[in-house]
Amino acid sequence: MKTLIEQCRDGKIPRPVRQIAAGEGVAAAAIAAAVARGTIVVPANRKRTVARLCGIGAPLRVKINANLGTSPDCEDDAAELSKLKIAVACGADTIMDLSVGKDLARTRSAVLKHSPVPVGTVPIYEAFIRAEKKYGDSAGMTPPEVLAVLEEQAEAGVDFFTIHCGVTRKNTALLRRHPRFLGMVSRGGALLARWMQRTGQENPFFSRFDDILRIARRYDIVLSLGDGMRPGSVLDSTDRPQLAELKLLGKLAAQAVRAGVQVMIEGPGHIPLHHIRRNIALQKKYCRGAPFYVLGPLVTDIAAGYDHIAAAIGSCVAGMYGADFLCFVTPAEHIRLPDEEDIKLGVIASKIAAHGADLARRNERAWEQDRRMSAARKVRDWPAQAACALDPEKFAAMRRQSRPQLDDVCTMCGKYCSMKMQGEDSERA
Amino acid sequence: MKTLIEQCRDGKIPRPVRQIAAGEGVAAAAIAAAVARGTIVVPANRKRTVARLCGIGAPLRVKINANLGTSPDCEDDAAELSKLKIAVACGADTIMDLSVGKDLARTRSAVLKHSPVPVGTVPIYEAFIRAEKKYGDSAGMTPPEVLAVLEEQAEAGVDFFTIHCGVTRKNTALLRRHPRFLGMVSRGGALLARWMQRTGQENPFFSRFDDILRIARRYDIVLSLGDGMRPGSVLDSTDRPQLAELKLLGKLAAQAVRAGVQVMIEGPGHIPLHHIRRNIALQKKYCRGAPFYVLGPLVTDIAAGYDHIAAAIGSCVAGMYGADFLCFVTPAEHIRLPDEEDIKLGVIASKIAAHGADLARRNERAWEQDRRMSAARKVRDWPAQAACALDPEKFAAMRRQSRPQLDDVCTMCGKYCSMKMQGEDSERA
Repeated sequence: MKTLIEQCRDGKIPRPVRQIAAGEGVAAAAIAAAVARGTIVVPANRKRTVARLCGIGAPLRVKINANLGTSPDCEDDAAELSKLKIAVACGADTIMDLSVGKDLARTRSAVLKHSPVPVGTVPIYEAFIRAEKKYGDSAGMTPPEVLAVLEEQAEAGVDFFTIHCGVTRKNTALLRRHPRFLGMVSRGGALLARWMQRTGQENPFFSRFDDILRIARRYDIVLSLGDGMRPGSVLDSTDRPQLAELKLLGKLAAQAVRAGVQVMIEGPGHIPLHHIRRNIALQKKYCRGAPFYVLGPLVTDIAAGYDHIAAAIGSCVAGMYGADFLCFVTPAEHIRLPDEEDIKLGVIASKIAAHGADLARRNERAWEQDRRMSAARKVRDWPAQAACALDPEKFAAMRRQSRPQLDDVCTMCGKYCSMKMQGEDSERA
Repeated sequence: MKTLIEQCRDGKIPRPVRQIAAGEGVAAAAIAAAVARGTIVVPANRKRTVARLCGIGAPLRVKINANLGTSPDCEDDAAELSKLKIAVACGADTIMDLSVGKDLARTRSAVLKHSPVPVGTVPIYEAFIRAEKKYGDSAGMTPPEVLAVLEEQAEAGVDFFTIHCGVTRKNTALLRRHPRFLGMVSRGGALLARWMQRTGQENPFFSRFDDILRIARRYDIVLSLGDGMRPGSVLDSTDRPQLAELKLLGKLAAQAVRAGVQVMIEGPGHIPLHHIRRNIALQKKYCRGAPFYVLGPLVTDIAAGYDHIAAAIGSCVAGMYGADFLCFVTPAEHIRLPDEEDIKLGVIASKIAAHGADLARRNERAWEQDRRMSAARKVRDWPAQAACALDPEKFAAMRRQSRPQLDDVCTMCGKYCSMKMQGEDSERA
């Protein structure tokens, strides 16, 4: 059976492409052409029906991902399902189950069952956790076991995989020669690097990339090439190891697209504001326009507790310059596993960033949303303003908590509302 | 008595300049030269001792302002003083008392008494509210009464005044010829425009600008030239009325500096991300490097309830490109008068933006803060991380609420903490 890329190359307009075209108001043929050349991806495993499909890549709207998942300290599936519900309700376009709890397969199965949006995973986590159980130590893990995990997760319906194929022996050696402030902060990257060091073997996501492409092809899974060498501090931003990995990911991405496999590239991380433009430009160049999936980026390291804001700044700017997919960051980042409120705040902050980027990318539908809000603001129609807001309930609740004496204004200005004064004056005129 | 500008022109290094130099690690002579040419201002009324002086303008750190003040619906001075305390504790460099409640002079007096940081006001509010009381209608207000308010507020110790001198007959006519989605959203600007329309007179802040300079000189007050024509929707961004006003403000700023009066320029407002760079460049050009005080800018209109985030994005980018002073925006913006929690969130979001901009402006002390945080993160020293965070209490509380089984990691990754894995591996090596 042909993959989405292959169908589009054959000049077909597959059904997912038509659905996305209708939802975004973009010509289906343009989307199909972008899928064929690898600049738009549509995460949708053949084995699963995704209720809310999404396309990722210009000229589509910037998409956002929310991360869920258990950890050794929090293994409550019900809590994760509740977070899933909140994330989707607040506007997450995809979710990733990053569970590293003992029963992560059970969690994933529940998430796949309940998620209306595409689901991504980082399969190396399960491979390591299985090896720990089987051998008492993750160093026992073998490359065929890694492939087996990919195969099982694919069969279970996962829509996209993060694979850290850039954490190669060559690149880890480069990292040792170019020391950094915080080394390798990627969890999957650090696990792999440790395994490579202990076993002396090459990273299986790199050495068995062809096998992985075969699995991805079979299920038409999107590969998300992970940035194990991403900077985890603004002090490490845009250094040689980061860029060496990005170049390698670009080569592997080209190989994937040639094989008919959809692929996107993961990006940093912690990047000071004045480096962001260059980061995106390099990604677009090295990776020939493959969709760029940025993890933030955070523009400072000192905002812990409010990292959703540091990330919203970086994400919005990255989106303006061409990042296509924003991974949310919650206020809990660097401190703890996020709770439900953290998830909500993370998704909303990321939506603001994506929307701000869409305006800067001249997306007509995004502009239409601001037009509607401003029209409601002009006539001081408070329910209409709430309806136009990214979080209508929050708007309505804040309004309820603070009612003005005059019903058509707010308690900030009262009768001195500039909108009201102008309205009265134009009636008088 | 000579003003700060004049003293600096005479080659002196006045004490406030020395204090600021010490606090910022910048040469006092460089600051004095910048004050002399009008690219740094130091708000500090001669009649008042400001405990925490601040300088505004490159190469100093980007500063932030928090707005307080009563409204016709909320006239509780104690609440405003409590907000003042919170704003200053969270890092506001200045505060503005924007009261429009009936007893606004009483509120201001309390704020001036308790504020350790410079205090700004918008004197037109008091002028109009007095006229309402005296004549039953603000249209009765006379230009000498406006000057009297300025004089009294100066005598009371206000450190900087927002004066909407760009809302001239010419510019309001331009606004009528170039209609906008949301017209004039500035409260002071709209009040003035209405008065001008009803009385047929020119804006007294423009027609009496010389008199205003005399008052500002006498108390060495900083004038903040308000942007009454600022866009209140991204749909109105960077239009002709906005730019015409900015040009006029540039001329008036030059006149102020010649007269030895410190001056800064207020800027938008609602600006989509891709317009920000141009806005800053035009301000710097038209206003010959006068410090730029931006109100946000918000990069979208639909984030009401979370406008502190939409503003943090715009502010950080504006700061990178040269804005020197960021007016915070709270989550309550467009919905209600902010409460204490709103004030806190607004200040923190603005601090993140200012700090992100400082990193992009290569401020060494800002980089040092990130260096300290990353060093604490690397060794998983949780109390040290809290101490480096913008909001140490929030960090510590989030950590307390979610204790991991292993004491040196967090509940996000547990034993799979990349920092911990790297630390163990380097010990083993």
